[in-house]
Amino acid sequence: MAKKRTHLFKKKLGQIPGSVIYTGERAKEKLFIEVFDYNKDQYIEKELQTVEESFDFKLSDSTTWINLNGLNHVSAIETLGENYNLHPLVLEDIVNISQRPKIDEHEDYLFIVVKMLYYDTSEKMVSEQVSFVLGKHYVLTFQEAEGDIFDGVRDRIRQAKGRVRNMQADYLLYILIDAIVDHYFSVIELLGNKIEDLESDIFTGNINDDATKNIQNLKREILRVRRSIFPLREVINRIEKNKNTLIHKKTITYYRDIYDHLIQVSENIDIYREMIWSLMDMYITTISNKMNEVMKVLTIMASIFIPLTFIAGIYGMNFNYIPELQFKYGYFAVWGVMIVIFLAMLYYFKRKKWL
Amino acid sequence: MAKKRTHLFKKKLGQIPGSVIYTGERAKEKLFIEVFDYNKDQYIEKELQTVEESFDFKLSDSTTWINLNGLNHVSAIETLGENYNLHPLVLEDIVNISQRPKIDEHEDYLFIVVKMLYYDTSEKMVSEQVSFVLGKHYVLTFQEAEGDIFDGVRDRIRQAKGRVRNMQADYLLYILIDAIVDHYFSVIELLGNKIEDLESDIFTGNINDDATKNIQNLKREILRVRRSIFPLREVINRIEKNKNTLIHKKTITYYRDIYDHLIQVSENIDIYREMIWSLMDMYITTISNKMNEVMKVLTIMASIFIPLTFIAGIYGMNFNYIPELQFKYGYFAVWGVMIVIFLAMLYYFKRKKWL
Amino acid sequence: MAKKRTHLFKKKLGQIPGSVIYTGERAKEKLFIEVFDYNKDQYIEKELQTVEESFDFKLSDSTTWINLNGLNHVSAIETLGENYNLHPLVLEDIVNISQRPKIDEHEDYLFIVVKMLYYDTSEKMVSEQVSFVLGKHYVLTFQEAEGDIFDGVRDRIRQAKGRVRNMQADYLLYILIDAIVDHYFSVIELLGNKIEDLESDIFTGNINDDATKNIQNLKREILRVRRSIFPLREVINRIEKNKNTLIHKKTITYYRDIYDHLIQVSENIDIYREMIWSLMDMYITTISNKMNEVMKVLTIMASIFIPLTFIAGIYGMNFNYIPELQFKYGYFAVWGVMIVIFLAMLYYFKRKKWL
Amino acid sequence: MAKKRTHLFKKKLGQIPGSVIYTGERAKEKLFIEVFDYNKDQYIEKELQTVEESFDFKLSDSTTWINLNGLNHVSAIETLGENYNLHPLVLEDIVNISQRPKIDEHEDYLFIVVKMLYYDTSEKMVSEQVSFVLGKHYVLTFQEAEGDIFDGVRDRIRQAKGRVRNMQADYLLYILIDAIVDHYFSVIELLGNKIEDLESDIFTGNINDDATKNIQNLKREILRVRRSIFPLREVINRIEKNKNTLIHKKTITYYRDIYDHLIQVSENIDIYREMIWSLMDMYITTISNKMNEVMKVLTIMASIFIPLTFIAGIYGMNFNYIPELQFKYGYFAVWGVMIVIFLAMLYYFKRKKWL
Amino acid sequence: MAKKRTHLFKKKLGQIPGSVIYTGERAKEKLFIEVFDYNKDQYIEKELQTVEESFDFKLSDSTTWINLNGLNHVSAIETLGENYNLHPLVLEDIVNISQRPKIDEHEDYLFIVVKMLYYDTSEKMVSEQVSFVLGKHYVLTFQEAEGDIFDGVRDRIRQAKGRVRNMQADYLLYILIDAIVDHYFSVIELLGNKIEDLESDIFTGNINDDATKNIQNLKREILRVRRSIFPLREVINRIEKNKNTLIHKKTITYYRDIYDHLIQVSENIDIYREMIWSLMDMYITTISNKMNEVMKVLTIMASIFIPLTFIAGIYGMNFNYIPELQFKYGYFAVWGVMIVIFLAMLYYFKRKKWL
Repeated sequence: MAKKRTHLFKKKLGQIPGSVIYTGERAKEKLFIEVFDYNKDQYIEKELQTVEESFDFKLSDSTTWINLNGLNHVSAIETLGENYNLHPLVLEDIVNISQRPKIDEHEDYLFIVVKMLYYDTSEKMVSEQVSFVLGKHYVLTFQEAEGDIFDGVRDRIRQAKGRVRNMQADYLLYILIDAIVDHYFSVIELLGNKIEDLESDIFTGNINDDATKNIQNLKREILRVRRSIFPLREVINRIEKNKNTLIHKKTITYYRDIYDHLIQVSENIDIYREMIWSLMDMYITTISNKMNEVMKVLTIMASIFIPLTFIAGIYGMNFNYIPELQFKYGYFAVWGVMIVIFLAMLYYFKRKKWL
Repeated sequence: MAKKRTHLFKKKLGQIPGSVIYTGERAKEKLFIEVFDYNKDQYIEKELQTVEESFDFKLSDSTTWINLNGLNHVSAIETLGENYNLHPLVLEDIVNISQRPKIDEHEDYLFIVVKMLYYDTSEKMVSEQVSFVLGKHYVLTFQEAEGDIFDGVRDRIRQAKGRVRNMQADYLLYILIDAIVDHYFSVIELLGNKIEDLESDIFTGNINDDATKNIQNLKREILRVRRSIFPLREVINRIEKNKNTLIHKKTITYYRDIYDHLIQVSENIDIYREMIWSLMDMYITTISNKMNEVMKVLTIMASIFIPLTFIAGIYGMNFNYIPELQFKYGYFAVWGVMIVIFLAMLYYFKRKKWL
Repeated sequence: MAKKRTHLFKKKLGQIPGSVIYTGERAKEKLFIEVFDYNKDQYIEKELQTVEESFDFKLSDSTTWINLNGLNHVSAIETLGENYNLHPLVLEDIVNISQRPKIDEHEDYLFIVVKMLYYDTSEKMVSEQVSFVLGKHYVLTFQEAEGDIFDGVRDRIRQAKGRVRNMQADYLLYILIDAIVDHYFSVIELLGNKIEDLESDIFTGNINDDATKNIQNLKREILRVRRSIFPLREVINRIEKNKNTLIHKKTITYYRDIYDHLIQVSENIDIYREMIWSLMDMYITTISNKMNEVMKVLTIMASIFIPLTFIAGIYGMNFNYIPELQFKYGYFAVWGVMIVIFLAMLYYFKRKKWL
Repeated sequence: MAKKRTHLFKKKLGQIPGSVIYTGERAKEKLFIEVFDYNKDQYIEKELQTVEESFDFKLSDSTTWINLNGLNHVSAIETLGENYNLHPLVLEDIVNISQRPKIDEHEDYLFIVVKMLYYDTSEKMVSEQVSFVLGKHYVLTFQEAEGDIFDGVRDRIRQAKGRVRNMQADYLLYILIDAIVDHYFSVIELLGNKIEDLESDIFTGNINDDATKNIQNLKREILRVRRSIFPLREVINRIEKNKNTLIHKKTITYYRDIYDHLIQVSENIDIYREMIWSLMDMYITTISNKMNEVMKVLTIMASIFIPLTFIAGIYGMNFNYIPELQFKYGYFAVWGVMIVIFLAMLYYFKRKKWL
Repeated sequence: MAKKRTHLFKKKLGQIPGSVIYTGERAKEKLFIEVFDYNKDQYIEKELQTVEESFDFKLSDSTTWINLNGLNHVSAIETLGENYNLHPLVLEDIVNISQRPKIDEHEDYLFIVVKMLYYDTSEKMVSEQVSFVLGKHYVLTFQEAEGDIFDGVRDRIRQAKGRVRNMQADYLLYILIDAIVDHYFSVIELLGNKIEDLESDIFTGNINDDATKNIQNLKREILRVRRSIFPLREVINRIEKNKNTLIHKKTITYYRDIYDHLIQVSENIDIYREMIWSLMDMYITTISNKMNEVMKVLTIMASIFIPLTFIAGIYGMNFNYIPELQFKYGYFAVWGVMIVIFLAMLYYFKRKKWL
């Protein structure tokens, strides 16, 4: 069978731990590196051709944001990692896109994995892994492919909007993660709409045979969203509680804000989850109700006409001597009896509220 | 599709954190500000035209309650917030009405978000956000629209009923929150009545096609009530445990009382929840029972008349030689046989308890 | 609609906190106050006419038990409370009968609310609130109405049975609570019997249309029992852990014993709960099985006689030329064919095990 | 109704706490007391006639195991308890056979209640309470009736097999409890077999009307096994963590081994539990499938023969002028039409895979 | 009945604790012992004929890995255990293959039990127990049978690939467990495929009677996988937290990596679990839908032809005087009426969307 399968393999079996091997499917992405370097007074924005160009920024005291798109360019990532002194397992995790959201606390940097969720043009939910490395003066971000939701952040740096230019790397990390978490709201809002649509389709009986499939798919989707979002709460919580000097006390209030948003998202997800789980019950009820209706039609038709047909059968018998047959108005009398039976049955079904 | 959707967006995507933007739908509410300033011996009640008028009260040692209705008046809120030195994120949360109940402990004030629940005139449950700021000598309250459930509190201040005039801001906060929590009881009582009504409708079979819809809506409603009420327990708990000097030891007993009430409400909600979840099962059972009844009618009618019709059919055949047809009383004999079969069937169904 | 509703209102909306207002329905109960005052060597038992008569006992070093029935007599309770220096919120809780079991630790007394459960004469479960105040030398009990389950305790004091006369107020409290907890066993035993009866009714198919209703009522009843009993575990646990000197180390073993009993009761309740939740499934299965049986009868009758009727119909046609009709033994041949078909069908259904 | 009920009463209502009253049903068991007294070099085994004979063993430094069968002999137990200085509540618990597994830590002994599970000859699960008292040099065991699973232990003491003779009372307690826990494996294995049998009966459709009953009984049985076994984990855990000097550090490894076994048993029980809960769903599916099959037979028979009978009916009409009736081969033509319809229907049902 | 049963017996009843008795079914496995002894500069690989040959390696300072296949060779294991000073209960656990994953911390070694999962050639999941003993300079592994998933590890030692030759025994243990955990991914991927296949079979209605059986088997399989994998998380967690000097601080990061992988596997298992539990609901819905379809065919056929047959029956009656029969075009008029009824019914069913 050549059908598309979900692949979970975190790496090739037997692979040496710490090997930096890209596990995703976008093996042909172009390498894209951009650098923002800013302080209160000025900022530099630059697209780099090679990783090595970024090395200078490491020395400056200003805040540096290096964003790298294209996880398939393993050697570039290794070079960057070496320069910033990252642990081999961190590099392995960056290019292994099946991580769950997590935080690893290293001596002089934090490594954070977050899932960016969005719906693509065909309304399919996409989950893309974004890795963050927060150092004293820098934030590194690693994305699988071009196109992200950080444009608002870029604008703020360029135009010195909000507090970003007055704050340091920990605040930059905050607004980047905040941008991702903000997007969760729109993802679950769309998910909520899907559920409401399906629900109202089931209510109105406007369902086709795919209803079961749609419900099952929604279940799976919400389970995946949960898996992408729920562990992030623990990550943010650990950033807040972090004893490291990388996160300044002043910034912690902001992370707490993200945490609150994540709780809100989580609660909504769990409510949606309960609603979806109810959908199947509702659907079964709808089917049963329909069958009831079908059965009623059958029962009414059969109950009315089977006795009448029996009466007609009686007088279709060929006995030599059937007195009624000779009656002048026998035929009409039978019709009369039949109509009485017919009306009696109607009344009976009416009283039973089947009509 | 132009249908009404639930909006979860906590703010516009890409919005700068700390932006004070109203997210509700009542953009045209009139601004209403009232001040109560009291101590044991006297009280002042005043409706303000501008926020600035409230600034004087900040200086006095008496307890001040400033209540502001109309979250759409963002600049007024910002002015007030500046005067009381509130954090930008606090202001953002005040006007963002999709908060969950929470408490933020700041250095010299507590910020508390509570959901006020009530049924509007069309029996639809409304959840309105009320934000509290508790300082050493003041309580600020922010409501989305006019009309609240604090009239009892106002009367107590005016008429020096109860302890309120002898106590301080922390006690004022208590009676305000207590008024909201008291209202939860009436909300869940109404919810309980709805469930009992639906239940008894299902018992008596007095249901229409909306039953599934009603059950699903009740499920959703109770999930929303849970979400509005449950986090408040943690909020009150943290007020109790609070090491801050804002809450006096003497007042903590009162907060403990609110906590007990919240536990009571929560337990009732969870019991209602289990009852609603059972309703669907009950409904399915009811449908099945009805189908059983329909099937029995069909089976009885068909089982009785199909054999009889067969017998009539036999003697309707046109064979040249069918001896029975010549018998003088053949016709009556057949009737006899038929009646015997009929009675036998009746007896059979009687014994099976289908009749 | 004038139907009886469940009332949850803990108090009138807008009521001032600490107001002592009776919330139950037995507004006309007679006030009954009795005092037991005892030590190792002697005891006094006395029915009091006024609360004031009890004041003398407060001074003595002997153990005093004051039992007050009739929560509607609010002023008497207030007088008593004042004499024993009780907090206003404690008095409010005593007369507010919708409390959940709880313990409030005050400086020189413990306030404990327990639910007394019993089945009344019409097999309806009654939950009556009993409040206890344990001081150094006294126990106060407050009950809604006359008639309780403490007669055993009274006898033990009178006749110096067991350890009670040698022990102090904390032991008296223990045997009072123990009497209530003992009663829980008989309550859940009766509940268990109800479940077993309903279960065996469903097994034997001996069910009427009320089955769903009965199941739902049992669910509700067990949820209420849970709510009355489960919080008591925490109460007893906190008595055990209590650092106060009110509970002597020697008595703690006894409270531990109550705790064990409560765990036993709780486990039984949870088992019953699971059994009840299964009952609905069982009932649905029973209904489905019945429908299956109904369908089989219909199918067998129809499948046998419809083809036979068809054959009879064939030879009831009036074509000029139907050769079989002329055969001398055509009629009997047809009968033969019909009987063969009949037997074949019987065999078929037999093999399918539908007969 | 005289049916057998489950009795939960832990004691007679109103009974004085600490009363030693046997609550089981085997009131006529013979009293049986045996003593093992051993050290590394020698051992004594003796059946005692009176409890008093055991008093000498208390003085020796060797390890003493006193086993008493027959909880109805309350006075013997009280005498023994007095000699070993047991708390009255301990004695009450020993003879009250509705205890749940528990441990009570007293100053110089541990009191442990365990449930011994086995299937009796009629494959009914029996749960017998065994109480242990572990002192410095002795273990007391109390069983309801004769016949236990400790023969292996006795043999090991007699023949100095294993470590038992080199170890002390805490090790003796270990091998006694270990013998009971070992037996749990065979109990749940049998339970597992019952489930698999029922499951395969349901798969093969080889079910009678008792299926629901059997499932419900299995549910109840597994809930009871859970209740007997699960609390024991906590008991063993507390023995391990025990700070008392009664359990030597060297022996703790052995108790840890029991703990591991209990976890294994618990996991299996929970898996069985999930399987049983699924059985009802499976059974409902089986019933639905059967009904589907019944319905198909009916539908096929009716759909084929009803139209054919209609056609026969058409030509059974007595209109003066029905042209087809005059056709020479009209009859055969009708047969032809009927056969075509018949085959068309067969093909239709074949394509629908109903045949 | 001679059917295959699941055996849970952890050992023979009455067996002495610490007896080293093999509990598996592969009693005829050949004994296979291999040794790897290596340091940074060199390595020795050797297949041993007797256990005693391994004794020399114990003395060296290099890292030694002794792998023993064939748990039936109890005496060899005992000899090895004695040499490495293992506790008797450890030896018992090694050969008792029904252990759950666990870690026992002994003074100078760690004992770890892990379950190796793989699908055999007939797509049946196999769970094989692998025991590890980690000492200062050695790792012992015990497997039930030949054939494992450690070839990658062997290669790395031989070819000095990765870090293994520069690290010590704790790192060796890590890469061995890592190899097993990596394999879990492929196991649950296959499990996921099975679920998706079954799901899509149910969607397409392409199901046979085994569907229920397959679902139930998948449930059981996933419960077993859970049981094999979930406890390992706790094991790894305790290795991480271990205060022992056996695990170097540098290696802990690697164990943390395993922990992350286990969480990932666990989450996937739980998602699969929910999907499987939904499958039964989906299947029931599918059955109900099918029955609905069957019922519709029956109802349509019966509702159309029963009234028509009745009409034909009317004019098949033999009354002397039935005026219509004399009409010249009576027959055709009846046909007309019948066709009208037929079309009316078709329209009715069309509008009801049953056609």
